[in-house]
Amino acid sequence: MSLHPELKAALRKLLTTGFLDAPEDLRCYSYDMFARAEPETVVLPESTEQAAEVMALAQRYETPVTPRGAGTSLTGGPTPVRGGLVLGTARMNNVLDLSRADRIARVQAGVVTAHLQRAVMEQGLFYPPNPTSADYCTLGGNVATNAGGASGVKYGVTRDYLTGLTAVLPGGEILSTGGRCMKDVAGYDLTRLLCGSEGRLALVTEASVRLLPKPEAVRAMSAYFPDIKSTAEAVAAIMSSGYAPCTLELMDRAFLRAVKQAYEFDFPADAQALLLIEVDGFETTLNDQMQAIARICKEQGAFQTTVAADEAERQSLWQARRGGTAALVRQASFMVSLDYAVPVSLLPEAVDRIGALGGKHGLEVVVIAHAGDGNLHPLVIYDPKDTAQAAAFAAFDRDACNAVLELGGTLSGEHGIGMEKAAHLPRQLSPAFLRLAREIKRSFDPRDLLNPGKCESACGNED
Amino acid sequence: MSLHPELKAALRKLLTTGFLDAPEDLRCYSYDMFARAEPETVVLPESTEQAAEVMALAQRYETPVTPRGAGTSLTGGPTPVRGGLVLGTARMNNVLDLSRADRIARVQAGVVTAHLQRAVMEQGLFYPPNPTSADYCTLGGNVATNAGGASGVKYGVTRDYLTGLTAVLPGGEILSTGGRCMKDVAGYDLTRLLCGSEGRLALVTEASVRLLPKPEAVRAMSAYFPDIKSTAEAVAAIMSSGYAPCTLELMDRAFLRAVKQAYEFDFPADAQALLLIEVDGFETTLNDQMQAIARICKEQGAFQTTVAADEAERQSLWQARRGGTAALVRQASFMVSLDYAVPVSLLPEAVDRIGALGGKHGLEVVVIAHAGDGNLHPLVIYDPKDTAQAAAFAAFDRDACNAVLELGGTLSGEHGIGMEKAAHLPRQLSPAFLRLAREIKRSFDPRDLLNPGKCESACGNED
Repeated sequence: MSLHPELKAALRKLLTTGFLDAPEDLRCYSYDMFARAEPETVVLPESTEQAAEVMALAQRYETPVTPRGAGTSLTGGPTPVRGGLVLGTARMNNVLDLSRADRIARVQAGVVTAHLQRAVMEQGLFYPPNPTSADYCTLGGNVATNAGGASGVKYGVTRDYLTGLTAVLPGGEILSTGGRCMKDVAGYDLTRLLCGSEGRLALVTEASVRLLPKPEAVRAMSAYFPDIKSTAEAVAAIMSSGYAPCTLELMDRAFLRAVKQAYEFDFPADAQALLLIEVDGFETTLNDQMQAIARICKEQGAFQTTVAADEAERQSLWQARRGGTAALVRQASFMVSLDYAVPVSLLPEAVDRIGALGGKHGLEVVVIAHAGDGNLHPLVIYDPKDTAQAAAFAAFDRDACNAVLELGGTLSGEHGIGMEKAAHLPRQLSPAFLRLAREIKRSFDPRDLLNPGKCESACGNED
Repeated sequence: MSLHPELKAALRKLLTTGFLDAPEDLRCYSYDMFARAEPETVVLPESTEQAAEVMALAQRYETPVTPRGAGTSLTGGPTPVRGGLVLGTARMNNVLDLSRADRIARVQAGVVTAHLQRAVMEQGLFYPPNPTSADYCTLGGNVATNAGGASGVKYGVTRDYLTGLTAVLPGGEILSTGGRCMKDVAGYDLTRLLCGSEGRLALVTEASVRLLPKPEAVRAMSAYFPDIKSTAEAVAAIMSSGYAPCTLELMDRAFLRAVKQAYEFDFPADAQALLLIEVDGFETTLNDQMQAIARICKEQGAFQTTVAADEAERQSLWQARRGGTAALVRQASFMVSLDYAVPVSLLPEAVDRIGALGGKHGLEVVVIAHAGDGNLHPLVIYDPKDTAQAAAFAAFDRDACNAVLELGGTLSGEHGIGMEKAAHLPRQLSPAFLRLAREIKRSFDPRDLLNPGKCESACGNED
């Protein structure tokens, strides 16, 4: 299918420098970390109004539009499976307003998360959501997936910081939700309906986010454990204590080995897992909290707990956590990063079951987790071109979903459904839920032109 | 209109002790703090399943159902304006689960908010949302209005604590959203779509809420100011400092006068306003925070700041704040509690304009505010039976809405739209927003049987 020549001409005229249809450009915009499909054309509007004109044109020519931030999705979210246009937000990358007085920032969708984090920090403020890809991913993508990351355990997720959105509806109408107020109950909460809707209901072009005062200090600690189950048990024990760590990241031995090979990072020979734990707040309170949490870790079997002596030591722990996945990918032929969440008291059992399922299906499963909120990311290394391995992965995937659902968990804590989890969705969500989801989708996008072929529309339970 | 005899018989059979149709019962369930209309029958189901049977029967006989918690609404939310059934949640009042390990509680809709607060506190946990009516209002009502209260300035609102809901759709189907996980992005966020939907989309029967560790200590301070504008300026200055008070309540002189007459409470003769300020967290950090905040207050003109010496002194300040409205009501022939929010930097201007509008229209306007999040509650005392006063109030109401919207504010911070604000809604929300709201309503409730005549359906901008 190729784009209608009139549409192409109109888009080229509208977006002189933001119109791309060279094969090398189409390829660049064809993939995320999970899937690949080429668009007919890429458009990079530079304003909400220009994006609205694109959306109006696309609807006139019945052409699918797939929104794209930085393409760091792990589920096929920004992959244009039905061709048409990829609408990238790269040129909408301005912080439009940053008010210390109102503790609020208004940003365009293409702003990189870490840029916002740094800009607000310079004002003594703090934007907590912190996906592992913060250095690359965009606020628009964060809103689309309701991104979380390591800070979720204390500070929640993207949705918890939104006060308003500007979005373009299929057809080109501009929708404004919420605003700059900390409390606002006028009308249904369309802000949070759009958040996590994976670009299926509207194209988010601007977001207003509330900010917190920057914590006075933060302290990091490493805790090494002799086995992964006791590590998960320590996590559950910390979370049922009165302490509120702002980071509680779990990394297993295979992950640490990859880190060691890639970076200057060493770990004790007997360690089967590492917890990276942070507390933040008033400086004078941190040592006591760290000591108490270290005590809990030791009670659960940790054989070494070390508070980072300075920012350099702290950053070395974070380099391990952030760079480890890339290090693994470089070693492996292919790796899938999965995403489940369970109630934190069941994290030990979830870790246990996932590990056992890896063994059962003969797959190498590396486990990392934003453990404090029960959010697991099993990394599965296999060769999808090898039929037997592909079948083993499919069986593992099905069994892992079952295990998570049996534990009262969810099929996605933060990566979203996209293409990856669509087939599993009816196992978690009831027919009533899915029917309402489809009706809401129709209210926003009656012709199914916005990011088609994902989520509830691809879950095989059509009504 | 009276109930179909078959429906009445079926309901009486289903709900032996939870079926009320004596005139005195109908009267009890006819009003909230804003409006009054009598139902044909009151039903008090004791489970989600029983509520589902009621909803199925109601739809079969095309009978409106108006959900009701404790009736503390200030906007006509639980008033059955089209008759039919009032469905009260009073008999669904159990805390079903309270897990310290998972920091989560699952409660029935009829649980009184303060009961939950106390139950979790006994476990060393903390449920922050704290509407002024916490001693009476229910979790179901809190979810319906996305209730906030004094703790919102630091801890956010009801929506920020929900992890899942059980609800009954019109027609009787049971809908489950979310669950027990801290992160969950499977499917659109129907949990938060229902939260704040004022009982228009589904009858919420159960809620799962996340809990925080109980702060180690809390400290309260009173700060008296010579005029209300400098009080509001102090609030803005505190909020743009690095401090994060958990309470920042403003009360004006007229309010304090009513408190003084009703309780053992005195205040300085020159005081035009009081700020009740609290900080919480680790004990060792509280004095420094309080001193810094007191300094800011003095810089902005406070002539007296006093830290509460003990819990009794703290409770006396809270009695003033909580009991003041009741004290005013007892003095006045009639009083309306309004609800707006603005960005906090504009609170001084909002307070100024609202006061001036009271003068312009010759009305007595008392001002209280959850000031830290810019959430104002002007209390207007007038006699609605006096034509001139009623006209003055209507003019004030229109002007105040305009002023708030001009400041980038919202028509409702936490009370909701209900009947009170429906006519004003199109001045804040765009036609696109209202069209989507109506389509979402139709997806959930195609026959408009659930809490009809409120919010977007009554806003006079039908499509």
